Amino acid sequence: MMTVPVPGATVGVVGGGQLGRMLAEAASPLGVDVVALDPTPDCPAVPPATAQVTAAFDDAEGVRELAERADVLTYEIELADPDLLESVAADADVEVHPTPDTLRTIQDKLVQNRALEDAGVPVPDFTAVDDADDLEAAFDDLGSPLMVKARTGGYDGRGNAPVESVAEAREAFDGLDGLVAEELVDFERELSVIAVRGDGETATFPVAENVHEDEILRESVVPARTSEDVREHATAVARDVLGALDGRGVFGIELFERETDDGTEILVNEIAPRPHNSGHYTIEGCHTSQFEQFARAVCGLPLGATGLRGPAVMANILGDPDAEKRPADLAGAPDALAKPGVSLHWYGKREVRPLRKMGHVTAVGADRETLLDRARAARDATGFE
Amino acid sequence: MMTVPVPGATVGVVGGGQLGRMLAEAASPLGVDVVALDPTPDCPAVPPATAQVTAAFDDAEGVRELAERADVLTYEIELADPDLLESVAADADVEVHPTPDTLRTIQDKLVQNRALEDAGVPVPDFTAVDDADDLEAAFDDLGSPLMVKARTGGYDGRGNAPVESVAEAREAFDGLDGLVAEELVDFERELSVIAVRGDGETATFPVAENVHEDEILRESVVPARTSEDVREHATAVARDVLGALDGRGVFGIELFERETDDGTEILVNEIAPRPHNSGHYTIEGCHTSQFEQFARAVCGLPLGATGLRGPAVMANILGDPDAEKRPADLAGAPDALAKPGVSLHWYGKREVRPLRKMGHVTAVGADRETLLDRARAARDATGFE
Repeated sequence: MMTVPVPGATVGVVGGGQLGRMLAEAASPLGVDVVALDPTPDCPAVPPATAQVTAAFDDAEGVRELAERADVLTYEIELADPDLLESVAADADVEVHPTPDTLRTIQDKLVQNRALEDAGVPVPDFTAVDDADDLEAAFDDLGSPLMVKARTGGYDGRGNAPVESVAEAREAFDGLDGLVAEELVDFERELSVIAVRGDGETATFPVAENVHEDEILRESVVPARTSEDVREHATAVARDVLGALDGRGVFGIELFERETDDGTEILVNEIAPRPHNSGHYTIEGCHTSQFEQFARAVCGLPLGATGLRGPAVMANILGDPDAEKRPADLAGAPDALAKPGVSLHWYGKREVRPLRKMGHVTAVGADRETLLDRARAARDATGFE
Repeated sequence: MMTVPVPGATVGVVGGGQLGRMLAEAASPLGVDVVALDPTPDCPAVPPATAQVTAAFDDAEGVRELAERADVLTYEIELADPDLLESVAADADVEVHPTPDTLRTIQDKLVQNRALEDAGVPVPDFTAVDDADDLEAAFDDLGSPLMVKARTGGYDGRGNAPVESVAEAREAFDGLDGLVAEELVDFERELSVIAVRGDGETATFPVAENVHEDEILRESVVPARTSEDVREHATAVARDVLGALDGRGVFGIELFERETDDGTEILVNEIAPRPHNSGHYTIEGCHTSQFEQFARAVCGLPLGATGLRGPAVMANILGDPDAEKRPADLAGAPDALAKPGVSLHWYGKREVRPLRKMGHVTAVGADRETLLDRARAARDATGFE
């Protein structure tokens, strides 16, 4: 392993959104600098990140400059280009974590599902779809509606749609090639586990329960309101997922909890090769946040303690559906901060877009139901969605 | 009260050391920018602070530039100039918190002691000293040795010396004018309380027990290892101190716990009109850190919850006595971070000076004695003092 000097290391991160921003906030105490590559000038990560390379995620010159300024490369967005990262890192003699191979696996949902299946990790039944015949066969085998996903290019629920007919799929995906069809899981709960691989060690964070609306995460409740057995089961599945992926880093693993006649099943829904929205609660909720772990992991430092300090609820703050608000319209921030035990994280985005993630609040210091009420009330108080 | 817009506010802070750095780290999630004025280029606060005004603390042009870029002014060092801040802030139509009057009171230890005495706050017996006769009288009245302090210019224990004779005082202070002599308190423990005033509300953090060596803070143990009654008493005294000071902000209040025939006495030793080294434990130890409170308070936002999340021990990392090390010599950082529940805060100082504060570690997640062992072991592992 190449040595990353701490303090004094610079992490080069492809993507300068809120994940890069919270990485930089967490890296600063460790004496680790962050340089972010992002096409948007004044991206959310900078400051607190030291500097920005303003370039497209797949811009060779930009990624080369990033590598030259960094001791290790990583990414906070799946749209990073694994081939480019691999070649540039080799030239600059730095490592990329998680590995470009892992990024390739995760970028293609069909490859991802097959890799998980090969590793013995439970996933929803799935099949590749490249034309109408494939899709018809999928309806026959896996039922209707199906959850259809674009193999590549989707993230955070984008590029996914439940469909009941070939025509519907054709409209949703602008054609039928490069898709994967999955059984639509009738789940009890959506759970997630943030799993981490460091230098020769792994760790998992407590299991979160995720409340989605229209495929967008609204709240995470921790610990998940299910049985201890199910939480242990979910954690074991997350560890198995980690076993199927290479390289140091943080992985957000989304899971379905499904009741069957044979008991509770845990199925892997999605994997993100980076810190995940459903792990934001770790900043206030755990001894070490997912962002500090990210910095520790990619630098090859020992991982921190992942224990839960107490129940925590995170609620996302989203742009209004018509995007009529401006960032400065967060006039309700004081009201949000007045709720007991509530922290605000504002991402510094220059522009509101419909349902764009603008920030989040986390509530700690009480029981989960009280915290859920407080987090929602704080979010509502901001005036955003 | 003038409105400070959040998000989007800029706090202008005189001083860009570790306190400014940790302020900026805590302000970033709130969407609050920090601009720091500091004479040292590449001062520790920047980044994560947005920008630096490179100027002496009392440089009128520099402070004016700071005020023009800020929505509110504050300071993280007692050497800030209250008259300059006052006039510049008036010109720029921004407020200064804590108020320049409070800074004036705290800058002069004689004025400070008198203000506290007038407010009914217990302080060690003291007297003004301007010549040898005054000092002789002080020995007669207050005993020997005396704790002699320069009225102005001292901080963090600098400018203080225990003396047993006029000759000794003359040598320690380069003359005998502008001093205050205090009875040397035979204390049981040194305690401290971080107290906060926001917009119409106040808060106190849990009581820390401070271990000093040669007047330099080495460790803080929280909760202080004394009785619950004494901790409540100390908190009540801190609240009284807050009552004697104007303006929003964070105050570090150092206390002596002394046993007398009439029970336990709590005396105020020193006040810092800013976050304090003995409050660094709040970052991991409390729901809201002293630095987030600092940002909230000076911006007039609601204060956060100050409850203790569990025992915490902080240990300072100091430069070696001969300052032969370089900052990059922190090769033991990985060993420090490998201790369970240990966080590292490295201040990014470019130069090691003898016993200079270079960083600190905080340990959480166990009982106090275990945490004290771990924090010391982590500190020792860094290779620094």
